[in-house]
Amino acid sequence: MATQTSLTTIVRSTEIDVNAHVNNAKYLEYLEWGREHWYEQLGLDYTTLKQMDIVTVVAHISIDYRKEAVQNDELTVLTRLKRIGNTSFTMLQTIENQRGELVVEADVVMVTVSPTTHENVPVPGAIRQHL
Amino acid sequence: MATQTSLTTIVRSTEIDVNAHVNNAKYLEYLEWGREHWYEQLGLDYTTLKQMDIVTVVAHISIDYRKEAVQNDELTVLTRLKRIGNTSFTMLQTIENQRGELVVEADVVMVTVSPTTHENVPVPGAIRQHL
Amino acid sequence: MATQTSLTTIVRSTEIDVNAHVNNAKYLEYLEWGREHWYEQLGLDYTTLKQMDIVTVVAHISIDYRKEAVQNDELTVLTRLKRIGNTSFTMLQTIENQRGELVVEADVVMVTVSPTTHENVPVPGAIRQHL
Amino acid sequence: MATQTSLTTIVRSTEIDVNAHVNNAKYLEYLEWGREHWYEQLGLDYTTLKQMDIVTVVAHISIDYRKEAVQNDELTVLTRLKRIGNTSFTMLQTIENQRGELVVEADVVMVTVSPTTHENVPVPGAIRQHL
Repeated sequence: MATQTSLTTIVRSTEIDVNAHVNNAKYLEYLEWGREHWYEQLGLDYTTLKQMDIVTVVAHISIDYRKEAVQNDELTVLTRLKRIGNTSFTMLQTIENQRGELVVEADVVMVTVSPTTHENVPVPGAIRQHL
Repeated sequence: MATQTSLTTIVRSTEIDVNAHVNNAKYLEYLEWGREHWYEQLGLDYTTLKQMDIVTVVAHISIDYRKEAVQNDELTVLTRLKRIGNTSFTMLQTIENQRGELVVEADVVMVTVSPTTHENVPVPGAIRQHL
Repeated sequence: MATQTSLTTIVRSTEIDVNAHVNNAKYLEYLEWGREHWYEQLGLDYTTLKQMDIVTVVAHISIDYRKEAVQNDELTVLTRLKRIGNTSFTMLQTIENQRGELVVEADVVMVTVSPTTHENVPVPGAIRQHL
Repeated sequence: MATQTSLTTIVRSTEIDVNAHVNNAKYLEYLEWGREHWYEQLGLDYTTLKQMDIVTVVAHISIDYRKEAVQNDELTVLTRLKRIGNTSFTMLQTIENQRGELVVEADVVMVTVSPTTHENVPVPGAIRQHL
């Protein structure tokens, strides 16, 4: 089973919009925080990947908004690998609130690129093993 | 042919991230600015829709990241209707840079809801006619 | 002694700028989170004040930037009353990092306004007692 | 008389908060955009200063909030030098709306630092001449 990481965050006053709920764009920040956490928990932080001549770049996001979130909600971002291709991989991320309700659900496709050659490169075994 | 609106914005210093390019989440803000502009150009601003007892809510976004954008880039957000269902409609939005290159491309599904009953309601003719 | 509240937050990836540290503007968001927390802890949340026909509005901020903060830093926002005038009050806020180092220090002047008359009104006793 | 630069920006939907006006923190972003523009107009962009072994860092901001700004307001950020010290300089920045009303007024103290030695260095003549 794919390794899943969990990150909790509280919705703050400057994270809600004029409609008093979290804006659709803000959730993509929460999802990025969850992916950063996943990389760090798995020992695959930015510096480590860079030493392998790899950076990961977001190529596609598909996100469903299920339920609104409001100030002081406690949101949990769950992140795990869903699929691995040759030079890309897909993460499945969900955000739940403090009542366990699904707030958003997203597929995020990342591509692995060499910062030296700017070419796509195979997803490294260090990532692949977490599927 | 569907009415298309165009909004131009300059990438500012606080809109780029540690990688010196526009972050994946920020594009969703640009897309929202484009949709707000579309509503306003078509005489369907928030207040007008509210008087029809309608609010539009983002239900799904599918976005492809094609090319990075950097500080001072001039981005053009193009917005038009793509599909209309019973109680939802899909907007096709693209962002191009000053060289005419495609930066992102997105489908945004909106649902029409009554703020009074909190129930889904049919997409009004005022929106439907712009397909 | 003035009641002091404490709020902790972790610096996330989308909160740092191209220089890899927290941007000068972002600290004002952290300070606002600290003030919201202060109001809530003291039973003076937005709704309670509104029922007293009072809203508080930021009139002036003076902030010193002492030390940079980077991703994953654990910041503590400390908030307390410093001075109370007739229709305004000043909060002293500091942000420290996980090593107890001072990151920023700010004076924030708030004015008390009636949402009904839009006139300045005296700072209520409910706030005054916390000095 | 000090060289003054002017930058115009439109308030967008994701730049207003739950109170339907521009949040106190957002103005610091607008001010930064104005300073970046000032540097660029005067041929003192980041790269040019870096080649002189100089970076400028925000040390202090004192800001007065005079009038609220709302969605679609057209704001003009005016930026000019106010004072120059040995290793620091102060910029006077104001933001006006489309009716010429003063929205915010701020003093921003910048220090000049060598990215090589991390020591404060004298403000270069290239900046000094614009007072």
